Amino acid sequence: MDKISADSDVLFYYNSTKKWLVKITPKGQFHTHLGVIMHDDTIGKKYGSRLLTNKEKYVYLLKPTIHDHVMKLQHSTQIVYPKDLGYIAARSGLCGGQTVVEIGTGSGALTIFAASIVMPAGHVHTFDVDEEFMKTAKKNIDRAGVSDYVTLKKLDIKSSKRIPVTGADLAIIDLGDPWTVLPNVRKMLNDGGALFAVCPTMNQLETLTTELIQNEFTDIESTEHILRPINAREGKTRHAFRAIGHTAYLCYARKAHFGRARPKTVEPDAKKTL
Amino acid sequence: MDKISADSDVLFYYNSTKKWLVKITPKGQFHTHLGVIMHDDTIGKKYGSRLLTNKEKYVYLLKPTIHDHVMKLQHSTQIVYPKDLGYIAARSGLCGGQTVVEIGTGSGALTIFAASIVMPAGHVHTFDVDEEFMKTAKKNIDRAGVSDYVTLKKLDIKSSKRIPVTGADLAIIDLGDPWTVLPNVRKMLNDGGALFAVCPTMNQLETLTTELIQNEFTDIESTEHILRPINAREGKTRHAFRAIGHTAYLCYARKAHFGRARPKTVEPDAKKTL
Amino acid sequence: MDKISADSDVLFYYNSTKKWLVKITPKGQFHTHLGVIMHDDTIGKKYGSRLLTNKEKYVYLLKPTIHDHVMKLQHSTQIVYPKDLGYIAARSGLCGGQTVVEIGTGSGALTIFAASIVMPAGHVHTFDVDEEFMKTAKKNIDRAGVSDYVTLKKLDIKSSKRIPVTGADLAIIDLGDPWTVLPNVRKMLNDGGALFAVCPTMNQLETLTTELIQNEFTDIESTEHILRPINAREGKTRHAFRAIGHTAYLCYARKAHFGRARPKTVEPDAKKTL
Amino acid sequence: MDKISADSDVLFYYNSTKKWLVKITPKGQFHTHLGVIMHDDTIGKKYGSRLLTNKEKYVYLLKPTIHDHVMKLQHSTQIVYPKDLGYIAARSGLCGGQTVVEIGTGSGALTIFAASIVMPAGHVHTFDVDEEFMKTAKKNIDRAGVSDYVTLKKLDIKSSKRIPVTGADLAIIDLGDPWTVLPNVRKMLNDGGALFAVCPTMNQLETLTTELIQNEFTDIESTEHILRPINAREGKTRHAFRAIGHTAYLCYARKAHFGRARPKTVEPDAKKTL
Repeated sequence: MDKISADSDVLFYYNSTKKWLVKITPKGQFHTHLGVIMHDDTIGKKYGSRLLTNKEKYVYLLKPTIHDHVMKLQHSTQIVYPKDLGYIAARSGLCGGQTVVEIGTGSGALTIFAASIVMPAGHVHTFDVDEEFMKTAKKNIDRAGVSDYVTLKKLDIKSSKRIPVTGADLAIIDLGDPWTVLPNVRKMLNDGGALFAVCPTMNQLETLTTELIQNEFTDIESTEHILRPINAREGKTRHAFRAIGHTAYLCYARKAHFGRARPKTVEPDAKKTL
Repeated sequence: MDKISADSDVLFYYNSTKKWLVKITPKGQFHTHLGVIMHDDTIGKKYGSRLLTNKEKYVYLLKPTIHDHVMKLQHSTQIVYPKDLGYIAARSGLCGGQTVVEIGTGSGALTIFAASIVMPAGHVHTFDVDEEFMKTAKKNIDRAGVSDYVTLKKLDIKSSKRIPVTGADLAIIDLGDPWTVLPNVRKMLNDGGALFAVCPTMNQLETLTTELIQNEFTDIESTEHILRPINAREGKTRHAFRAIGHTAYLCYARKAHFGRARPKTVEPDAKKTL
Repeated sequence: MDKISADSDVLFYYNSTKKWLVKITPKGQFHTHLGVIMHDDTIGKKYGSRLLTNKEKYVYLLKPTIHDHVMKLQHSTQIVYPKDLGYIAARSGLCGGQTVVEIGTGSGALTIFAASIVMPAGHVHTFDVDEEFMKTAKKNIDRAGVSDYVTLKKLDIKSSKRIPVTGADLAIIDLGDPWTVLPNVRKMLNDGGALFAVCPTMNQLETLTTELIQNEFTDIESTEHILRPINAREGKTRHAFRAIGHTAYLCYARKAHFGRARPKTVEPDAKKTL
Repeated sequence: MDKISADSDVLFYYNSTKKWLVKITPKGQFHTHLGVIMHDDTIGKKYGSRLLTNKEKYVYLLKPTIHDHVMKLQHSTQIVYPKDLGYIAARSGLCGGQTVVEIGTGSGALTIFAASIVMPAGHVHTFDVDEEFMKTAKKNIDRAGVSDYVTLKKLDIKSSKRIPVTGADLAIIDLGDPWTVLPNVRKMLNDGGALFAVCPTMNQLETLTTELIQNEFTDIESTEHILRPINAREGKTRHAFRAIGHTAYLCYARKAHFGRARPKTVEPDAKKTL
């Protein structure tokens, strides 16, 4: 079960910047400047083995994880990074069996990641309006092996009068104007359900936060996540020279249930109450 | 099902620094400087509702997530933060159905988080040697509702001749000297299985990295994660003044299967091959 | 010349969070929870010496630097930090002999720092409208020993028809609405002169940048500076747990001289031209 | 006086990543992919003016600051960045009239920066052992216009029995093994004088800190500085995608004068005394 066969996905790994997700096909060849690998040479090998290219470079044959799928499939849209994906899951308490709605499927990266956590008992319902994106996303979701746990639909949640899913534990919003879907997202979430929006700009955080308060959300939190790679080597450990300066800001909130009273316009200030 | 009853766990939420995880008991009272809440007043309320204390402060009654459990239960040991937890899951591709081994249970925070993702088909096997910690961890795991997916055992993996679990997809190590368990962790992991170590110091990263290479791991990566809270408010958006400077460094690697040839002593340098 | 005398300023240094700037007076006493130091015991001692308190704690007697003055005097206003002060000097190329104008004296911290660099041939002209601040600032500037190189005036630069200084090499703006003074600041700067604004919020950066382009500035740059303290100790080196999350954003620009043609509305995009 | 003439240094500025420090020569030409600029067209222009290239691109003619010199001259050695330079000055309280010793001249960047602050009454004494570096540094120092305030000597401070300078206010060390020069640096510093070492690795910080304590320094502080560029644009303000991950760590300390008693082996712990 842990052996590579024709039709397997394999991560050819040379180093952290030279790695490729490859579908093995009989007689297939893989060409890079590191040399050539004949697909047939990988068949029957255990995952974790290494092969020598014709240029005498070792390449490891790793079993692709959800992370490898998520990182390799993102071409047509803004990338969502593991540091951000992981925080979305950990902060919202995403777990096996939950129901997730996603507004803005994009490349399907967030979809796949969320599905991999809630499966097999949970489900991700993802919505987009761009058919090109959806075609790509479908292919990506299939390849990652999570299509049983994902329903992908074309629907403009912003203006939809129909609420296609209710009782969701988490809503993930990846739109340029995430505040426009808040009224409908409220209806999709269960009581206390969580929301995460992926926001490239500070202005989006600001508008979204204002609208979240108006739409009766609480526990509102905006964060930014900086991943710093470290080169740990004997006697010369230091941070890496290369780094990514910015990916996206994240905004989290939970649906509150106020009853008849109207919410206050701002949350009590954490600093002042300390 | 979404209503609060006697015996429910409820997150009393006032603001980001004033929140408490409370077990509801008939006739129970909750006292803070924000005023008093009678437990009986919460019973029958929907999650997400709010209550007024006798000091006229609104407190929300939120359904605790795995995140709330993880953040509230960590008293006796070093805290593991959502930013780090999330990256561990996202980078290793942790998903529903997987098998996890954890060396060093601590307060059970990582245990609970991992169990919440792999459940119901997967399982977490966690090992510690400190009976006091284990008692606390057991209580925490029970309260978080994931005890069916966790096996907690007293065992010193470092010196154990018996390998209690094999075929693990992920090994999480939270020890001061994580390199000492590498030979046995290799035996627990399946081919290509992943490892994450939580390291408070740079020196640990350095020693661990050297030993990972010696123990035939690949795709080795050390990272640091900085979470920056943002105060998003109309016309005055800025990062928060308060922040945490350091939690832990993370070291990730995957088990390789070299066969008879010995591994090289360092990974090919990403920078040089660019 | 390096000995402590009555009337000397001395930094009593215990550790990085326990240090005090003290003016020595005959028969004076200094009380902390570390014990008591009699001022007379310090007189005649060399700077860099240490004294034992009556509680057997060593306290070093350090000669205060401009840094010590700047850090200890800031009570009434927002603090400006060495990391930000230093970048202002280094990025603008501030050097001995230059003329600086400062709009918003505040506590005088930036004033003192700038004066310490341009002195003795250069000068800092600083303007404020709040007489309380100015009184405090004057005291601080005197104590730091740079009053010969500073002229402190009450003047509202925003609405002033008189331009009190011309030919400045650097304008430092520490106001809530820095864009309001740009037309007059242009007249104070020499051709190519630099400007730095200290901005607590992202919104200020945004408005200021738009107005800088309208007011014919170029080389516009907004930055944020994160200082991370490191605990370097044998075998357990790591970042410090405590840190400051945010101080201020900085905006830099240089005055351009366009002649009759109007400026473009945005700077050419660095990313696109790469 | 602010007009460009033959022999002037001019910063040709297009945007933040396209800028060049050019020495104007009669009949000279400047070629880039932005087009051609005839040097003669710049002569007589005011600094801050702009010129149109033959490809219709505007280029500003800025008067180079010390910052521009420092950033453009660093070719042969590790770059020192404004964020780090500035902190060295601000934290040590470097000011007009002070004496600086520099061990390791490198490209002269730190030399020029320090000289620009202490001038005209102060002086920088800089020492290196590599004649190639020294030749380049001399050229750079001359071009930046600070050679009157710099003495550049070939001397191995580590093993020198002669102490060439005493009474220094600041010692800047840019060596791979900064701890080796501590005994001699102590002799060069005045009482309470400051030291800054530029350290690419964590291991250097660790060894240096241990040796600083042994060599009777106090107020020891290791820091790391992250500069985050911000793209401030109307309605879409965010951090820049591109960033530098690591430059160098900085270690600061002040010379203490213990007299006969031996120093303790570690500084009192700031955290514990809080």
